Amino acid sequence: MPWAGRAARVSRLRPQSPEDLPTREDLLLAAAYVLDAQYNRNVPFETSPQAIRLYYFYNHWTTQVATYFFICVDLALALFEEPALFPLPFLATSIAEILCLTAFFGRLIHFAKITPQMVFWKDTKNICIMVTIVLTLIDLIIYGSLESINVRSIRWSRALRPVFLINFPESRQIRRAFRSLRNTLPDILYVFLLFMFSVLMFSLMALKLFGDRGLKTAEGSPYFENILEIAFELYVLVTTANSPDVMMPAYDFNWWYSLYFIIYIIINTYIFMSVFLAVVYNNYRKHLKNEIRKLAYLKRHKMIAAFNVLKVKVGTDFVVEEAQWRRLAQVVAPDMSSAHLELLLRISDEGQKGHVDKMNFLRLADLLNIHVVTISIKRHPLEAWMPRVYQSSASLLVQKMVRHRIFVWVFDVIILINAIFIALDEKNSLISYAEWLFLSLYIIEILLKLYTYDPKAYFERKQFWNWFDTLIIIAALVATVANATIQSAREYNSQQILDIVLILRILRLLRVIVSIRRFRVIVTTLINIGPAMLTFGGLVFVVYYVFAIVGMEVFHGKVQFFDPNFTAPDALVCGNPALQGSAFARGRYCKNNFNDLASAFTVLTELTVVNQWHVLANGFALVTHQAAKLYFILFHIVVVILIVNIFIAFVLEAFFVAYSLEKSEVETAIEKKIQELGVGIQEEELQDGKLTDDVDTKDRGLHGDDGDNKRKALKGLYCRIASKKYRTVDALLQQMFESEIAPEDEGPALDEILNFSPSDMCPKNPNFENSA
Amino acid sequence: MPWAGRAARVSRLRPQSPEDLPTREDLLLAAAYVLDAQYNRNVPFETSPQAIRLYYFYNHWTTQVATYFFICVDLALALFEEPALFPLPFLATSIAEILCLTAFFGRLIHFAKITPQMVFWKDTKNICIMVTIVLTLIDLIIYGSLESINVRSIRWSRALRPVFLINFPESRQIRRAFRSLRNTLPDILYVFLLFMFSVLMFSLMALKLFGDRGLKTAEGSPYFENILEIAFELYVLVTTANSPDVMMPAYDFNWWYSLYFIIYIIINTYIFMSVFLAVVYNNYRKHLKNEIRKLAYLKRHKMIAAFNVLKVKVGTDFVVEEAQWRRLAQVVAPDMSSAHLELLLRISDEGQKGHVDKMNFLRLADLLNIHVVTISIKRHPLEAWMPRVYQSSASLLVQKMVRHRIFVWVFDVIILINAIFIALDEKNSLISYAEWLFLSLYIIEILLKLYTYDPKAYFERKQFWNWFDTLIIIAALVATVANATIQSAREYNSQQILDIVLILRILRLLRVIVSIRRFRVIVTTLINIGPAMLTFGGLVFVVYYVFAIVGMEVFHGKVQFFDPNFTAPDALVCGNPALQGSAFARGRYCKNNFNDLASAFTVLTELTVVNQWHVLANGFALVTHQAAKLYFILFHIVVVILIVNIFIAFVLEAFFVAYSLEKSEVETAIEKKIQELGVGIQEEELQDGKLTDDVDTKDRGLHGDDGDNKRKALKGLYCRIASKKYRTVDALLQQMFESEIAPEDEGPALDEILNFSPSDMCPKNPNFENSA
Repeated sequence: MPWAGRAARVSRLRPQSPEDLPTREDLLLAAAYVLDAQYNRNVPFETSPQAIRLYYFYNHWTTQVATYFFICVDLALALFEEPALFPLPFLATSIAEILCLTAFFGRLIHFAKITPQMVFWKDTKNICIMVTIVLTLIDLIIYGSLESINVRSIRWSRALRPVFLINFPESRQIRRAFRSLRNTLPDILYVFLLFMFSVLMFSLMALKLFGDRGLKTAEGSPYFENILEIAFELYVLVTTANSPDVMMPAYDFNWWYSLYFIIYIIINTYIFMSVFLAVVYNNYRKHLKNEIRKLAYLKRHKMIAAFNVLKVKVGTDFVVEEAQWRRLAQVVAPDMSSAHLELLLRISDEGQKGHVDKMNFLRLADLLNIHVVTISIKRHPLEAWMPRVYQSSASLLVQKMVRHRIFVWVFDVIILINAIFIALDEKNSLISYAEWLFLSLYIIEILLKLYTYDPKAYFERKQFWNWFDTLIIIAALVATVANATIQSAREYNSQQILDIVLILRILRLLRVIVSIRRFRVIVTTLINIGPAMLTFGGLVFVVYYVFAIVGMEVFHGKVQFFDPNFTAPDALVCGNPALQGSAFARGRYCKNNFNDLASAFTVLTELTVVNQWHVLANGFALVTHQAAKLYFILFHIVVVILIVNIFIAFVLEAFFVAYSLEKSEVETAIEKKIQELGVGIQEEELQDGKLTDDVDTKDRGLHGDDGDNKRKALKGLYCRIASKKYRTVDALLQQMFESEIAPEDEGPALDEILNFSPSDMCPKNPNFENSA
Repeated sequence: MPWAGRAARVSRLRPQSPEDLPTREDLLLAAAYVLDAQYNRNVPFETSPQAIRLYYFYNHWTTQVATYFFICVDLALALFEEPALFPLPFLATSIAEILCLTAFFGRLIHFAKITPQMVFWKDTKNICIMVTIVLTLIDLIIYGSLESINVRSIRWSRALRPVFLINFPESRQIRRAFRSLRNTLPDILYVFLLFMFSVLMFSLMALKLFGDRGLKTAEGSPYFENILEIAFELYVLVTTANSPDVMMPAYDFNWWYSLYFIIYIIINTYIFMSVFLAVVYNNYRKHLKNEIRKLAYLKRHKMIAAFNVLKVKVGTDFVVEEAQWRRLAQVVAPDMSSAHLELLLRISDEGQKGHVDKMNFLRLADLLNIHVVTISIKRHPLEAWMPRVYQSSASLLVQKMVRHRIFVWVFDVIILINAIFIALDEKNSLISYAEWLFLSLYIIEILLKLYTYDPKAYFERKQFWNWFDTLIIIAALVATVANATIQSAREYNSQQILDIVLILRILRLLRVIVSIRRFRVIVTTLINIGPAMLTFGGLVFVVYYVFAIVGMEVFHGKVQFFDPNFTAPDALVCGNPALQGSAFARGRYCKNNFNDLASAFTVLTELTVVNQWHVLANGFALVTHQAAKLYFILFHIVVVILIVNIFIAFVLEAFFVAYSLEKSEVETAIEKKIQELGVGIQEEELQDGKLTDDVDTKDRGLHGDDGDNKRKALKGLYCRIASKKYRTVDALLQQMFESEIAPEDEGPALDEILNFSPSDMCPKNPNFENSA
């Protein structure tokens, strides 16, 4: 097999996957090709040609970090361009932007080199990036030349900058969230039209019912006399932001008119908003299922391809020889301990026949993905260093004490007392000294724990709360000492450091939660879905950025914030007489403006929270034009009706998966096998059928491995399967779905897999389970 | 079998069911006992003893309507008692209340007579009613005696009145909603505690960060200086009602402090509120599934019991003889046509052997439940009356015209033109004449349709939109004529009638929706779940009533509404100087008070909508005591966090069922059999795999039955299965679940069924379907 062909194959792996990052299966398949070449044709691995080197370089962390860096710089430019938080001349920002564009273009060229042309040009991501680069350059040139003759124009291409973020391979989660958004649109469109129809019908009714009554609002302006204004007010009422004010004039006039508003709210706020959520959630689920199914079949497909590359015929069956299997595993997971490898082989080669059959080979990716922790009955470092002292009766007593439940309770009580002290007035010097006492108590606690438990196990990657504890205490210690130093040196409290100390002090209280089991379950679920929630952070950031750039172009400078102590006559109307008497000025909302990126983001956050958004919309409409309200309505539709609902759908789904795991353990075949071999230490026992908690886990992981000689079967290695608690929703779903694919099922053809659509998902009769 | 025993058995049917109303299975089982007695022991049916007569009388519609009436009177008493909308002397209301109590007591005695003592005393509903009657009497006596010596005390028992509504057998849907509420409580409690912990931690942080900055709010009051006030403000911020005002002082002081509020909102508003919904929804689903399962097994159980009563041995199998089967069906469904009965028999007795086997007998309840419409190729009444004229070419042309699609489109256009005319100024006399034109066009449309289609089919029970059309037009006609009459007679427009005419005129526009298919699907789903939504109306009514009574006792008279034209100095502060300068007075919220039941309900609605609830809470706290805020917080927790979330969960679930039906038809065995026999006319054909719509259905039902002689098989009877579209969510779920019980599965024992709990529902491994 010539190298060129192999390189093409290696790089073909990328676009085959619905997402870009190489998965464990991709690596296995690539390694299989490499091994095949080495083994059969004796081509040494080092002679890999330029294409392969380019491929590795493209995926190297340095180039990825560099790309991230340039994306950040590009996005951050908005902070320095007019209207700027930190103004820089146009020349400086435009040079920085051109640098970024060059970097993006370079990366694109790099990618084109390692990808077959056909595939490269088919990928919309590449086209997007290219078009954006060209548009940005055009905009820069136009703006620059107009600037040179002192004509101010609009830097419209700035709104396109998030395109680079979205199309970066690592941002596949954000792209996925965007896909969710796009998939939801067609279904939600009809509900939205119906909803708008309903709002318009009610507006017409309101115009007829209240229009010529001559009613006045609380501010004395005419009430419900213009159909467009009514429609806007009623749209605001759907968001509940102007309830009950919008109703009061009619209600004051006649009690019966309140029924109009109540019916309106029931239909449009309660029913339609629930229907929006239902449609979004239904769509989210449908597409999630489809993607998971696609991923599961793709994985199967790649593993079969890898098997076909490496298989040899033994008897009537095709198998992979043990030596080949070992080499493959070592290439893919070079830092795996040999004991671990041995374990995996024993699981894969059940009969110890010297080869691995197809069924077991297909599992290899899962086997390698299982995070196996080797728990040798390791001694505490101190014990190794000075066994006498560590094993002395006083030392053993201390260890026993620390391991006792009462130790935890005592510190919970201390934390609660600390909370009371924090709430009390701090000027009392006794109390500020008590703070030192608490701090030292916490430090003693951590030291005692480190004395008792193996520090390496204590600071294991998944021990979230131990890390949390230690970091908080160390940070508090550093900040408190720093503050004390500054205070004694200059007789003055640094406000920033004091603030930080205060926050750290209060964050310590969080530890009480961990002691209560029911709370821990909820918090663990929340921490679990945390990373995926950041995806929505990315999505929201992109949408905010675009709206902020547009908002800054349209509204900057229209509203000014004056220091509250500054008594200019304009201060009360935010420097704009048009705001005289408006709710915007009355609410002292002057700082809610679009004069720089940070302020714009804050305003957009307030709009996301919805309340008083109509005051902001009206205020900015007053200083520009009534049409400015459209900007705010559009933001509401995109962010509140779409994104927030997708976020809620996501949380709902994540909690369902978490709850269904609580009810019954999903043990995959692989995990069972580890148990069968008698080398598994299950990280958690089921207590009352519920998920157990970190503390139990920690305790058991640390000293739950006494006795039970059966476990010492395999060269002193104990396997603990990485906690299910910290797996992502996707991983769990994929696992569940995979357990439904029969082991002998080869899945549909590749093209078919890539073109799965949610609608051909449910040809079978829906059963009770999926609808109830 | 002695009569007493049988009566006991008949009445025992009631408490066996988890709910009270006799179902089709109950009737079948009861009838089986009666038939058994008649057939085997020759006891004539007429000699049924008093117990049976009492039982029938208890379930008679007159006694049920009477009970409803007394419940309504009892609840309505709050309108006439102090603080009253229409004041009546205490003597009058107390006599009315005693009458009601007597009626309730009588009904309870009646129920006790027909129920075994053990069962009667085990039922908490009966105990509840009795305790409430006693408590109400005690309260009446105390209040009455204090009143007679002119001491005003509190009529606390009024808050208990909804107990009668809840415990009335017909209110089982409300009880079910209450059960949902109760079931959700334990799970939500921990989330709520965690949430409160988070709010308190943030309050502490806010106190420390902002407490001694000396900041002022927009109103000039001190900002964040008291931990209780901070906690309240932050709780309000969770509901978003005071965003961004609560943030502005800190934000104005330093940009970075806005981060504190943004983090707070993300954690508490977005994440915690979503988790509340997730927990509520998860619970709702779990318990819904459990109830459906219980109902399905109970039904199976009763049908087996009925079979066992009637079975005779033929050969090796037990069967029910045809004659016995016929008698049973006639007793249970006396008004069924003989052709229909014949059809059912042919379905049940497949081999025409003269008896029905067990498997088919168990289906009898479902068979009888299927709404079979006989579609004889009936002629239009006009055709029968004057065939010549009706079949003349002119008449046929008219009919063809009306049936054409363009006919619908023309009227859609007319409606849209009508909408424009409505939006235009009405004072123009041309436009007000145009209204007459539109009205007559609509009337002509209906007449033409009645001419073309069989009026009986046009006004069939399920033809919602035909009814809607006709009623709206007739009402508009009556109101317009009435208004014209009054106007010409007295030269004056009655405002009420004009309002009604306007609303009717605008409601007509709704018809446009029906012409657009995608809209119709959404609207049909909404209409479908409408009745079940009324359940929530009941639940909300009960909760509102209790809160309104309490609110009226605590807050009545504290806030007064003055007519806007009345210029008393107190009018601006709602008659209470304590409100001077408060947001309550500034917002002109004086009419939001608890001075009578109607006002109280309006205030509670506003609190449910959430926005500005803190202004109301603060206002009422000012006129009474700070502790009054607890009333408003409690209301928020009960109504917004619990009930509204359950409502959303319900809508989500209903939409999922509706969507999964869109994807694949759930055809039960029975429906298939009807098709096999070739006598079924499926009401709907699947178009593009979607639910078809009313118009198509109507058209096909009316003239889709030409040709196809095969269908004429069974004595000219055509069966159309009642539309699935209008089935409730529960019915669909139950059907789905039943299709999962194997036909030979006898189900668990009765006691086991009644004690099903959601936690023993999922012993099997969750599969991909139920979690994704």
